[in-house]
Amino acid sequence: MSGGSGGGSNNNKGIVAVVGVGPKLGRSIARKFAHEGYTVAILARDLGRLSIFADEIAREEKSQVFAIRIDCSDAKSVREAFEGLLSLGFIEVLVYNASAPSTSPSTRFTDIRVESFEKALAVTTVGAFHCAQQVIPRMVERRKGTIIFTGSSMSLNGMPGSYELSCGKFALRALSQCLSKEFQCRGIHVAHVVIDGAIGPPRSSQKAFGDPMDEGLDGWMMDPDAVANAYWHIHTQDRAAWSQEIDLRSSRHSF
Amino acid sequence: MSGGSGGGSNNNKGIVAVVGVGPKLGRSIARKFAHEGYTVAILARDLGRLSIFADEIAREEKSQVFAIRIDCSDAKSVREAFEGLLSLGFIEVLVYNASAPSTSPSTRFTDIRVESFEKALAVTTVGAFHCAQQVIPRMVERRKGTIIFTGSSMSLNGMPGSYELSCGKFALRALSQCLSKEFQCRGIHVAHVVIDGAIGPPRSSQKAFGDPMDEGLDGWMMDPDAVANAYWHIHTQDRAAWSQEIDLRSSRHSF
Amino acid sequence: MSGGSGGGSNNNKGIVAVVGVGPKLGRSIARKFAHEGYTVAILARDLGRLSIFADEIAREEKSQVFAIRIDCSDAKSVREAFEGLLSLGFIEVLVYNASAPSTSPSTRFTDIRVESFEKALAVTTVGAFHCAQQVIPRMVERRKGTIIFTGSSMSLNGMPGSYELSCGKFALRALSQCLSKEFQCRGIHVAHVVIDGAIGPPRSSQKAFGDPMDEGLDGWMMDPDAVANAYWHIHTQDRAAWSQEIDLRSSRHSF
Amino acid sequence: MSGGSGGGSNNNKGIVAVVGVGPKLGRSIARKFAHEGYTVAILARDLGRLSIFADEIAREEKSQVFAIRIDCSDAKSVREAFEGLLSLGFIEVLVYNASAPSTSPSTRFTDIRVESFEKALAVTTVGAFHCAQQVIPRMVERRKGTIIFTGSSMSLNGMPGSYELSCGKFALRALSQCLSKEFQCRGIHVAHVVIDGAIGPPRSSQKAFGDPMDEGLDGWMMDPDAVANAYWHIHTQDRAAWSQEIDLRSSRHSF
Repeated sequence: MSGGSGGGSNNNKGIVAVVGVGPKLGRSIARKFAHEGYTVAILARDLGRLSIFADEIAREEKSQVFAIRIDCSDAKSVREAFEGLLSLGFIEVLVYNASAPSTSPSTRFTDIRVESFEKALAVTTVGAFHCAQQVIPRMVERRKGTIIFTGSSMSLNGMPGSYELSCGKFALRALSQCLSKEFQCRGIHVAHVVIDGAIGPPRSSQKAFGDPMDEGLDGWMMDPDAVANAYWHIHTQDRAAWSQEIDLRSSRHSF
Repeated sequence: MSGGSGGGSNNNKGIVAVVGVGPKLGRSIARKFAHEGYTVAILARDLGRLSIFADEIAREEKSQVFAIRIDCSDAKSVREAFEGLLSLGFIEVLVYNASAPSTSPSTRFTDIRVESFEKALAVTTVGAFHCAQQVIPRMVERRKGTIIFTGSSMSLNGMPGSYELSCGKFALRALSQCLSKEFQCRGIHVAHVVIDGAIGPPRSSQKAFGDPMDEGLDGWMMDPDAVANAYWHIHTQDRAAWSQEIDLRSSRHSF
Repeated sequence: MSGGSGGGSNNNKGIVAVVGVGPKLGRSIARKFAHEGYTVAILARDLGRLSIFADEIAREEKSQVFAIRIDCSDAKSVREAFEGLLSLGFIEVLVYNASAPSTSPSTRFTDIRVESFEKALAVTTVGAFHCAQQVIPRMVERRKGTIIFTGSSMSLNGMPGSYELSCGKFALRALSQCLSKEFQCRGIHVAHVVIDGAIGPPRSSQKAFGDPMDEGLDGWMMDPDAVANAYWHIHTQDRAAWSQEIDLRSSRHSF
Repeated sequence: MSGGSGGGSNNNKGIVAVVGVGPKLGRSIARKFAHEGYTVAILARDLGRLSIFADEIAREEKSQVFAIRIDCSDAKSVREAFEGLLSLGFIEVLVYNASAPSTSPSTRFTDIRVESFEKALAVTTVGAFHCAQQVIPRMVERRKGTIIFTGSSMSLNGMPGSYELSCGKFALRALSQCLSKEFQCRGIHVAHVVIDGAIGPPRSSQKAFGDPMDEGLDGWMMDPDAVANAYWHIHTQDRAAWSQEIDLRSSRHSF
């Protein structure tokens, strides 16, 4: 763990743990929850990059942000990361956003190494299972908590060449459904977000653009800040009307 | 049309038309959009009851609310209702919430009259098609607009005895998908909400209750105000991350 | 009704009614069941063409084939057609294969006339409902019978421009599920076939072709005779392992 | 490998490999393909039991049956098993029917050990991936072959308590879709069978029963012989109309 960056503590609220944080979606989600007053912990393999994100968010949102190294494919690393994390306070929100980049030479079935396929399931599915196990017991005790899994269009349709991602994401969706059915009656909101399309850099980091319908270079990509707002919305839904699954795509998505 | 009730006009915003308004979901949606500053038109067959709702919402939310009679199974009635409606201003949001109560003596297949089945499709599906046709041309011109269809768990699974509702709601979901694929690139957000469970009376109208996990008499039912918030959220989503379909259920829903 | 063409009667077996018979799938299904020894009734709007098919099948398969006019969008016509049909004997198999060609000037939403949309639902969905009602009471009495509905890829995904077909076919799939859940425990097998792709002319009617992987002009199209075999297979499934839904596509289908 | 039991060789046909063979479905599938004249190889962890099945099928069907030990969760074991298998001839059909029994003390999420969850994915999903990799290159060379994966209702819906089976089976379905889309145009038929319900002992091994609608003790269970017929049917489908997914359930299945 890299010590928490900046900000005062928010003792009333729990902590938001975002697992799988790169420069796009993970970072935007962390920033959104920090902006809303939560203490945030961001977890990924590259602690150096993670610490830069943590400092940046802490400074901009005047909040406390912890950066913790995790290798989701390694059970020992998951346990150690959560040991540190759980000592910080109650994890009220878990966002699982990690998936493994393929290490195989191509997307042709016969070129994918079994070890690469196993690793993909380890990161995308087993890591999610394991992280959920770390946080659920205390959520059950408090009868509250939110767990959000990041899915994709490949969670619903196995596409040619997407062996690793489709298999891992299908299984992740199953996990989300099983958890939801076991735990929603105990006050834990489990949701699955189907992200249909590529996520680009945040619009806020791009040059200002005028007519929102302008076809910019990345116009068909999703804005991670907009996606992060949807995660925040799921977390704030009234328990009398919870979503288990929502999809998201850019209005410029082509069919 | 019963003249608009109360309130000052909101010239900057368009009008929200809610088709299919009874004492539960339709009313809550209308109230939510009125609360957010929209002029609202509510449409249903029973103009007497509708006018009471309109007065009530206008008074409580200090907004302008129009009550317009419509029989969604009758093309002429739809056209007349929208003639009046379109003269009020730009319909920025259409919520289609109508479905036909069965008039058949039982839910056994052989007891369902063909006329009743036809009527169900006329209200649930054809009415939606027709209402969407009334509002889309101007939405296309302005490159903005939101259309939300109310679905149910029977939109996804044909249940024994639910012939009329399942067939109508499956078809409505198809309509929602087709519209979304044709019009989202032109700035119109089309969404389908899968409501999984029965909707009860608003909690706000019930005696105060303490622990939200208490099992009240209607504890497993959904709160229409909470569902209405989800409709509002869909309307306010950034076009860089639009939902086409979301599900909603009470945390007390049993599987 | 045009009198039955040719062949001796098969008193042991019931009658197979195929509703919606053109030169491709309907005709192939009728021929397959005739070939397997069933008396077949084929129903469609164009009695002239139908009678030619009936004669042809009767001659080639040495079976009895009845041609009966039906307009599936007209309740009176359905009732009359089945009055004649039911007088011929027990309808053991109903195949519902009818759907309406669009009469709208284009596939753009705003160009589709409400009357055309209604007609599409009337043929694709209401006609199926009505025909099923005609045959189910006797199937229940005998605790046997097979009902097969022809679906398409548009039964599962609403495609831009496919308003009429998607809405009708989604609703048809709902009907199939509801019927299956009500009647399979009473011995009636209800199945839905998702035909994913265009059906061409029968291969048998084309010039012989050698390597089955050759890319002929229509190589990517489905052979209606092959599809008809799948319908036959569904009918002959053991009740200990019935399919409710199967998909079919050419191996040359491109994704 | 236990030497092949009995029978003369069938040089014209390839070999059918059934992976995951117990006393129910796997055995029935092996027997069905043997009955149709194929040389069959059955693979499972318990070589003793497997050899008894092989002898029994070889004797009854007068065919050649090989029993080969495999531990699908162990990459080395898979490679060794297929080394032996591939030396026997061309594997024309692969049926993947293996899934891991849970070794966790209960089905509550917090009681499932990560190692058990990993093992379930290793057997259900990674094993399928690995076995498919062993047979596909030669199928591609010959432009023919059939691969069938055994799914379940838990392939489509994550049920409470079914973490291991649902996650593994969802991922298996993804694998099936990806393979199908990559290889069907090259002549390989990849299909997924959704078995909805429990499979009992074969009826043929039970006392004769009269009215097929009688509610026997196991009347609601599926007959593995009937299910095996469906696998055979998939294998024999014409390439002009291939199924990618079919479901199967007993007519006595209750909804």
